[in-house]
Amino acid sequence: MKKSWKKKMIPFATLSTLAVGAMIGTGLFDRSDAAEQKPTYQTQNELQQEAMKEIKKKHPEIKNVIFMIGDGMGPSYMAAHRYMKDNPNTPQKELTEFDKHFVGMQTTYSDDDHENITDSAAAATAMSGGKKTYNNAIAVDKQKHEIKTVLEQAKENGMSTGLVATSEITHATPASFGAHDESRKNMDQLADDYYNEMINGKHKIDVMLGGGKGNFVRKDVDLTKKFQKDGFRYVTSKDELLKSKDKQVLGLFADGGLPNMIDRPNETPSLQDMTTSAIDRLKSNKDGFFLMVEGSQIDWAGHDNDVVGAMSEMEDFERAYKAAIDFAKKDKHTLVVATADHSTGGFSLGANDEKGTGIYNWDTAPIKAAKRTPNYMADQIVKGASVDETLAQYLDLKLTPEELQSVKDAAASKNAVKIDDAIEKIINMRSHTGWTTSGHTGEEVGVYAYGPGKEMFSGLIDNTQQAENIFYILDMKKKHR
Amino acid sequence: MKKSWKKKMIPFATLSTLAVGAMIGTGLFDRSDAAEQKPTYQTQNELQQEAMKEIKKKHPEIKNVIFMIGDGMGPSYMAAHRYMKDNPNTPQKELTEFDKHFVGMQTTYSDDDHENITDSAAAATAMSGGKKTYNNAIAVDKQKHEIKTVLEQAKENGMSTGLVATSEITHATPASFGAHDESRKNMDQLADDYYNEMINGKHKIDVMLGGGKGNFVRKDVDLTKKFQKDGFRYVTSKDELLKSKDKQVLGLFADGGLPNMIDRPNETPSLQDMTTSAIDRLKSNKDGFFLMVEGSQIDWAGHDNDVVGAMSEMEDFERAYKAAIDFAKKDKHTLVVATADHSTGGFSLGANDEKGTGIYNWDTAPIKAAKRTPNYMADQIVKGASVDETLAQYLDLKLTPEELQSVKDAAASKNAVKIDDAIEKIINMRSHTGWTTSGHTGEEVGVYAYGPGKEMFSGLIDNTQQAENIFYILDMKKKHR
Repeated sequence: MKKSWKKKMIPFATLSTLAVGAMIGTGLFDRSDAAEQKPTYQTQNELQQEAMKEIKKKHPEIKNVIFMIGDGMGPSYMAAHRYMKDNPNTPQKELTEFDKHFVGMQTTYSDDDHENITDSAAAATAMSGGKKTYNNAIAVDKQKHEIKTVLEQAKENGMSTGLVATSEITHATPASFGAHDESRKNMDQLADDYYNEMINGKHKIDVMLGGGKGNFVRKDVDLTKKFQKDGFRYVTSKDELLKSKDKQVLGLFADGGLPNMIDRPNETPSLQDMTTSAIDRLKSNKDGFFLMVEGSQIDWAGHDNDVVGAMSEMEDFERAYKAAIDFAKKDKHTLVVATADHSTGGFSLGANDEKGTGIYNWDTAPIKAAKRTPNYMADQIVKGASVDETLAQYLDLKLTPEELQSVKDAAASKNAVKIDDAIEKIINMRSHTGWTTSGHTGEEVGVYAYGPGKEMFSGLIDNTQQAENIFYILDMKKKHR
Repeated sequence: MKKSWKKKMIPFATLSTLAVGAMIGTGLFDRSDAAEQKPTYQTQNELQQEAMKEIKKKHPEIKNVIFMIGDGMGPSYMAAHRYMKDNPNTPQKELTEFDKHFVGMQTTYSDDDHENITDSAAAATAMSGGKKTYNNAIAVDKQKHEIKTVLEQAKENGMSTGLVATSEITHATPASFGAHDESRKNMDQLADDYYNEMINGKHKIDVMLGGGKGNFVRKDVDLTKKFQKDGFRYVTSKDELLKSKDKQVLGLFADGGLPNMIDRPNETPSLQDMTTSAIDRLKSNKDGFFLMVEGSQIDWAGHDNDVVGAMSEMEDFERAYKAAIDFAKKDKHTLVVATADHSTGGFSLGANDEKGTGIYNWDTAPIKAAKRTPNYMADQIVKGASVDETLAQYLDLKLTPEELQSVKDAAASKNAVKIDDAIEKIINMRSHTGWTTSGHTGEEVGVYAYGPGKEMFSGLIDNTQQAENIFYILDMKKKHR
């Protein structure tokens, strides 16, 4: 956004007072009655009340905050990922990295006059700025006034800051932490915000890693050159990323979103590579850092009703999460919070039965049989590869003549979407994977936290509470420097 | 089951040692590593470890345990219920009674050689006996050996016991607490178990309230007479239930399952009526009581893909839950735990869009417009009522000619299922409610706890942990009497 956010910013003092009031004001064991008397978005329970007391004692412990968002990663995705990684030789389903740090769930709805299920922009604004807003809004409220974000507050406090994503780095989720706009669609302007908006005379985001080169290198301007002129390293491959040690870096590894993990060429960094590289650059600041990491394309696979892509991106995100946790375990002063913005696609484990019989089985084998996403296979076929050879190479299933024919029929159209859909259908039917929509769904999503202060995020909270908690931590840090 | 359960029972000492070992054995802050080294079903986190220490100090506080199961009540049902009860004049979605006491989630999978999504029998056995088993099993393990249940342990301890359900009281969930059989289908034998199986020379269940008269009053035997001869009051209407004060009661209010809440005639008690009546009878025992209450037909509506029935039964269950919480608040020595056994139907808030557009709205108005379930309306039509009049009377929607015709076409078949499906389709399409299956799905489900010991149920736990926790509580009670 062109206007300076400072003009319209909600004073931090107000936000902070609200947050602290909500957190500390109610008694320890009368949470439910208090909620009835003064309804607010804050739904933290008595465990959180206790946590608040604890955190006041140990505030200096929290130096860094890593906030991770699995876009679209609703409850079924968590269970599906656990099923995918299950060791079949034991009767129990082993815990995923997320499971080990499960602390609660959060409600996700936005405050939109026409829609009651959130989009990623409104959800990210709730988590970055602590305020419900309309779908499409990038860190602006319903009146389109800019909302200060936790990343901006961190930079104001002298901390280092970073954004990492597998989508365009200007996509709704990262943009809601580092920019402001009335619409998520204005990705060029959001890239401009990243360059133009200064805090205390400095660029507000020190590390930007993801896709979206097309929004930086444009006819009207080349923002990568401007960033380099101001001292940022600019990298476009995994190799360049890993070799550079600069504290400030802009890494753009695709014109749009990055390829999915299982389709990824060697030159593309993984989300784990980007996360580790971001942490390594940010951690030298004695005042700490704030880093937001998004597993962006779990959601994209959900929109596409592509279970192969969804599971690929869950794995990519889990490895990045593990890297953050490993850093936090050594560091001991880093809080890592992971959650989702909403669920996507009406994904279910169990589906496609003849009505009335029911199939009580979700088969991971047909999903594991795919060596690339259906999108990747469809692209190969559109480019001229034969259906038979492409499926033989990338889908390790003995297909029925009908299944094979369904892909050939789609291929005759030369339409990548139709081919993609035909391949997805085979895998969805065989694995008993269900989908109900190409949009989002309204159930609450899991919250996973590790490190000092994690208790603040436990129980059933609202997505606005994420920002409230982080503002509270940043406020304490500032006061006790 | 005819054999006495005592013969094949796993000694309680073993179970108890296992439970306590799992709960206390691991260190306070190394939960995740411990889980990797010795994988068990116990997934309790460090909050639970702390809770265990706490509960050891205050064990005498837990006198009564009320365990409540919303059958099929997965994450989408919780969110849908919150949307249904939302006050549209506030931007936030108000908390439901469940929300106020959310403490975590539980995994639900069974240990079946052919299916990896649980049925209600295996899930209830995990929660009643602490052991994973095959789908269909009623408190027996994979070798078909009987497993002692928490209800049986409570009775052995001298406590009073009760089962309340809106299904047949011999249906899979309640049966898994009070009987044993290799198959849930043997409901007559399960009723026999309720009468025949004695603990310390006494009937093991003092209060049985629900449906399923057909399994008690049979050609070969009338168990209601036998129970009456042994001192039980037998009641068959709400009026009789509320008037009787007997400590031991058998209440059977339908041949099969009870009518759904919104279809219910005056003579049928609500789940809240039955729960309150059960508590009133059980609470006089100075050694306390164990009561299991099931909202049985949330699941049945899910199997039917009937969002009207699902929301009716959620409301019925919530009122019963509120009654239990209200008792516990006054009593101060009662633990109330509510959870689900699995989710059903692949239910989603948001669906039925044209692929690629996405509908970010779940509209409750078409659901609230129904004054009876589609099943009820279909039954009226099959019995000869006109489609126009039935829909005008019970569905407050201005239907399109196509919608009306779809029900008339179904009515021509005189097939209640087809008519039911046609009415459901109108409501599902208009509300943007999605379904993927007539069976169950594999995601984890919420856990809600109130009262002393509730911390034991927090975080991500496995369904077997429910029984482990309750056995632990019962063991402590016994030792400290």
